[in-house]
Amino acid sequence: MKTYKELYTLVEQKIQQLNFDKQPKELYEPISYMLSLGGKRLRPVLVLMAADLFGVDVNKAMNAALAVEVFHNFTLVHDDIMDNSDIRRGQPTVHKKWDETVAILSGDLMMIKATDLLCETETSNLKKLISIFNKAGAEVCEGQQIDMNFEKRNDVSVNEYLEMITLKTAVLLGCSLNLGAAIANANSNDEENIYDFGKCIGVAFQIQDDMLDSFGEGEKVGKKIGGDIAANKKTLLLIKAFELADSETKSALQKLIDETPKNVDEKIKAVLNIYEKLNVKNEAEKLKEDFLAKAFSHLDKISVDQSHKEILRNTANELMVRMS
Amino acid sequence: MKTYKELYTLVEQKIQQLNFDKQPKELYEPISYMLSLGGKRLRPVLVLMAADLFGVDVNKAMNAALAVEVFHNFTLVHDDIMDNSDIRRGQPTVHKKWDETVAILSGDLMMIKATDLLCETETSNLKKLISIFNKAGAEVCEGQQIDMNFEKRNDVSVNEYLEMITLKTAVLLGCSLNLGAAIANANSNDEENIYDFGKCIGVAFQIQDDMLDSFGEGEKVGKKIGGDIAANKKTLLLIKAFELADSETKSALQKLIDETPKNVDEKIKAVLNIYEKLNVKNEAEKLKEDFLAKAFSHLDKISVDQSHKEILRNTANELMVRMS
Repeated sequence: MKTYKELYTLVEQKIQQLNFDKQPKELYEPISYMLSLGGKRLRPVLVLMAADLFGVDVNKAMNAALAVEVFHNFTLVHDDIMDNSDIRRGQPTVHKKWDETVAILSGDLMMIKATDLLCETETSNLKKLISIFNKAGAEVCEGQQIDMNFEKRNDVSVNEYLEMITLKTAVLLGCSLNLGAAIANANSNDEENIYDFGKCIGVAFQIQDDMLDSFGEGEKVGKKIGGDIAANKKTLLLIKAFELADSETKSALQKLIDETPKNVDEKIKAVLNIYEKLNVKNEAEKLKEDFLAKAFSHLDKISVDQSHKEILRNTANELMVRMS
Repeated sequence: MKTYKELYTLVEQKIQQLNFDKQPKELYEPISYMLSLGGKRLRPVLVLMAADLFGVDVNKAMNAALAVEVFHNFTLVHDDIMDNSDIRRGQPTVHKKWDETVAILSGDLMMIKATDLLCETETSNLKKLISIFNKAGAEVCEGQQIDMNFEKRNDVSVNEYLEMITLKTAVLLGCSLNLGAAIANANSNDEENIYDFGKCIGVAFQIQDDMLDSFGEGEKVGKKIGGDIAANKKTLLLIKAFELADSETKSALQKLIDETPKNVDEKIKAVLNIYEKLNVKNEAEKLKEDFLAKAFSHLDKISVDQSHKEILRNTANELMVRMS
């Protein structure tokens, strides 16, 4: 079985070979730019890992892997417009570096190019691959819209939050593994289990992301602590805090959210104090561990030699940062 | 051979049966809304006409027809954001009726759903259909970006203009006919000729659209005359006017473009006067006729009984409004 690092290197090489040196340059340059910003390349690596797990040459799954990475970057370009984000991986976002028109259009083009890449896969069942891919694609759109809707709501439940992050983040990890499995002609039970493994890892991963924003170490996380708090994002921590708070604390928390703060850092500190008092960090950590355990139970059920699953197990574990 | 009206009715029925009654409603409602705004359904009808021409049951091409219509509407939703348009077919645009986030996301989803529909086509060569579809899709994005770039330029040539409208408008008509032909397993020469027929019709159609904006009758056109002039759009008429003008007229025209007009109607009137003086209407009409003739020469070369081509010939002729 190939390691994460080996697969990452393969993916990175192929990404660099993708040629977007075309006209008009305003349309194509942002694609190269986004793909050059790096990152873990988690999704394409998962496509290859699943192909490897089910015994097919990872190169057969490479175009599908690239398709998922290009698709993921398309969603980032459009999300950054909607979230009004200026910075992505330490660099200006596309709509800031160019403009919004360029960001909308080059995002659209990336989605088309992603499907093109997927279609380059040698397979007897292209329709199935596209169906797996497009189902996740539609769900990612749904998740992003639900997240946008949350901004206007004050009554989001934990279950609604979990549904949202499942759609927005987790299904694409499931889809990545599923594509690799489908290219390797895995049986349908195995396909389902590896999809669910990826989905549960994705949920755990997003919960962790929420936690890192509040409790991470700034330098390690690579962004300012408390950004979600400053933006009143409906994270698991905020939702849990409202769920656990007595009426007095609830009022205090609501006031912090409703008021335009004179000093954002003080607002972040005050909210973090409430989080600490209510021990929401532990609650979130527990939920994250639940999803991780659920992920592994799906992995266990897959009908390949247990030892071959170690790479996927290790990858999942390495994605999880212990914060308590 | 089925008539435009018969095919239009079939398409309209199927569009009404498309089910976008899903959650979150902010994401799915705009899709139903856009598709309910009507229009000529030219692109899907062309898919079916080509299938009919090459002797296949039009129902076999219906999903591809719907795919093209959904794709076209996706481009309208995103273009309306970029062009900052408030009204589309007499109704508020998606980003006005909802908001920009909804317009970006529901547009993205429409693109995914378009590919889904295309994949529902019964065919032994799905990869080819997607390739035809995605090539046009990428070119439409390129055309829109080039059009956006024109806004910042004052030296656009007629050839550059023709390249832009070919990409932005014409290739999707070619693609529609090509899809119908490919589903009917037409030979590659016939496929090329019907694609080029559609592309040339598309160019003629766009030239006419430019002309209608300046010389049409407001009620018939369904929008205010002179909108392109008010917005300083680089239409064929403006480009031709700069090409034909003497230095004095050129300066006057440039002044009209550069200055923020006190009275827009007077600006429109002044530009129209220049157009009349330079006879750009005739020049544009000539170019339109050239492309129409070119279209018909491609149609003539297609290896099916000439009488079967009458519907396509009539459709092309009916699309062209005589304005002189």
